[in-house]
Amino acid sequence: MSAITPRYLTGKTDDIKDFLDHFDVFLFDCDGVLWSGDHVFPGTAETLDMLRSKGGIAYPYPHVQVVTNSTLGKQVVFVTNNSTKSRKDYKKKLDDLQIPSSVEDIFSSSYSSAIYISRILKLPENKRKVFVLGETGIEQELASENIPYIGGTDPAYNREFKAEDYKSIAAGDSSLIDPEVGVVLAGLDFHVNYLKLALAYHYIRRGAVFLATNIDSTLPNSGTLFPGAGSISAPLIMMLGKEPVALGKPSQAMMDAIEGKFKFDRQRACMVGDRVNTDIRFGIEGKLGGTLGVLTGVSTKDDILTSDVRPLAYVDTLSDLLGAK
Amino acid sequence: MSAITPRYLTGKTDDIKDFLDHFDVFLFDCDGVLWSGDHVFPGTAETLDMLRSKGGIAYPYPHVQVVTNSTLGKQVVFVTNNSTKSRKDYKKKLDDLQIPSSVEDIFSSSYSSAIYISRILKLPENKRKVFVLGETGIEQELASENIPYIGGTDPAYNREFKAEDYKSIAAGDSSLIDPEVGVVLAGLDFHVNYLKLALAYHYIRRGAVFLATNIDSTLPNSGTLFPGAGSISAPLIMMLGKEPVALGKPSQAMMDAIEGKFKFDRQRACMVGDRVNTDIRFGIEGKLGGTLGVLTGVSTKDDILTSDVRPLAYVDTLSDLLGAK
Repeated sequence: MSAITPRYLTGKTDDIKDFLDHFDVFLFDCDGVLWSGDHVFPGTAETLDMLRSKGGIAYPYPHVQVVTNSTLGKQVVFVTNNSTKSRKDYKKKLDDLQIPSSVEDIFSSSYSSAIYISRILKLPENKRKVFVLGETGIEQELASENIPYIGGTDPAYNREFKAEDYKSIAAGDSSLIDPEVGVVLAGLDFHVNYLKLALAYHYIRRGAVFLATNIDSTLPNSGTLFPGAGSISAPLIMMLGKEPVALGKPSQAMMDAIEGKFKFDRQRACMVGDRVNTDIRFGIEGKLGGTLGVLTGVSTKDDILTSDVRPLAYVDTLSDLLGAK
Repeated sequence: MSAITPRYLTGKTDDIKDFLDHFDVFLFDCDGVLWSGDHVFPGTAETLDMLRSKGGIAYPYPHVQVVTNSTLGKQVVFVTNNSTKSRKDYKKKLDDLQIPSSVEDIFSSSYSSAIYISRILKLPENKRKVFVLGETGIEQELASENIPYIGGTDPAYNREFKAEDYKSIAAGDSSLIDPEVGVVLAGLDFHVNYLKLALAYHYIRRGAVFLATNIDSTLPNSGTLFPGAGSISAPLIMMLGKEPVALGKPSQAMMDAIEGKFKFDRQRACMVGDRVNTDIRFGIEGKLGGTLGVLTGVSTKDDILTSDVRPLAYVDTLSDLLGAK
């Protein structure tokens, strides 16, 4: 994709300053960049402060909630594929980790999905309902865009599949099949079960649009991996022989949604991430002016230097950017 | 695969006789061939009787249970990818549908899996346990081969995934991770959940052999489709980036197991089925002497005549073979 040799910025004050001067907006991947699990990397908050203060008025955090604006300094956006949390939940996580933010700085795959459904999909009035495979984060973001939904965390779906369900579903019985469902949205669902998979499959067969918050096959936790949102879509992909439209990184549907909200100049934006195949790819395919790799997460220095997908520059840790002070 | 023009046998007495004379053993796919759902096709029992009586002593059914033997006529074997039923359960289904059979005539993917684990896999003594994603049919067949197992229908696994499960699984805590598990066997599981998928994934990462009873993506029922056994493996395949060894049609591991049990001459055996891509492929790749398509199931006449995988001959319905009387 890009055969450039990424610039190594760590320890090079002038190079860092020069790099930062090119951008007004920084899109941040979170886990592996700002923190790992519950452990915040040293200097994370200071680095974000530095960016937000650079070139303008200091960002008025942490107790004043504002809509950030690049005229006040550089804009920082937290971009996460985590679909289980709403932006409000995620703000709480950032607060707990003592990372200053406002809800408006957060862009999650659940929010991205809600924006896509409400503003991009043109659904007929009688097909506006979403059948959710996922957790409360998705439900909250759909509600924030006034999108009706069923499924999700509703305990009525948290039950065994019964022999009579075959016939009810086949017949489109209204006790199980809601004729107003026009979208199936699959995210990470800790309550996935046979009934919900069967219903999702049948809604899509009946014409519902197949969306996924994101298709990461795994979810990092406790130093290892667990089933990710992609493993909830996987049975449907296999059964249907088709892929969902994914609303998380590296899907450009997410970039379009971010740009739609923040209205920035892509040439003046930089994606910061630890994974070349999701974060860096996301920035490059989105034609952002820059991409910055960090070595505190999944991709190694070797990946960054030799992958098909290489960032414009890289640092050992995010806080190395403080060298620009 | 085979560019032959399949012979159309319906209504051609001499052709049918000639065809049947070539074979001592008939392997039957069931749903779509003998019945559809709970509806037995007219003439099914009579056709099986005819085959069993041909060339020898009449098969002593229905009340005398015998090990069938080709010297008594043609051997009929029921080959099913259904993993939720044990052979005993399946015999009961055949009884209910008034199709004469003995348990020994039945070869299911759950039985095939048990045979493969006990007789083909060489597991170390301390790695003999199987973690099951599936129903009682699998458990019964594992028990019939004296294979220890966990998971499956054990209600202890039928619970929510809890935040502390991440750490327990990551640490290999013995409350959740049994160090003796050497195989993960995934079949159709109506009780699939996040905990079971996470455990299956971790067992395979820790070195367990990844097996699937079968990988049919869908399960026909009530005139439509539902998630099949393959949709239980799908998340694991996506997460691991590798495929399981499948023990159902069209996997030749199943053919080897059938031959291991019945000791027949493949040249004198014919596979009968409704799906070119599973049944007919299974027979051709197994180098059986013949394959017979029927048009009462999934594949159409057009599929049979133009597919890459074509049977040696075909009939409209199985009972058309009665024309050989």
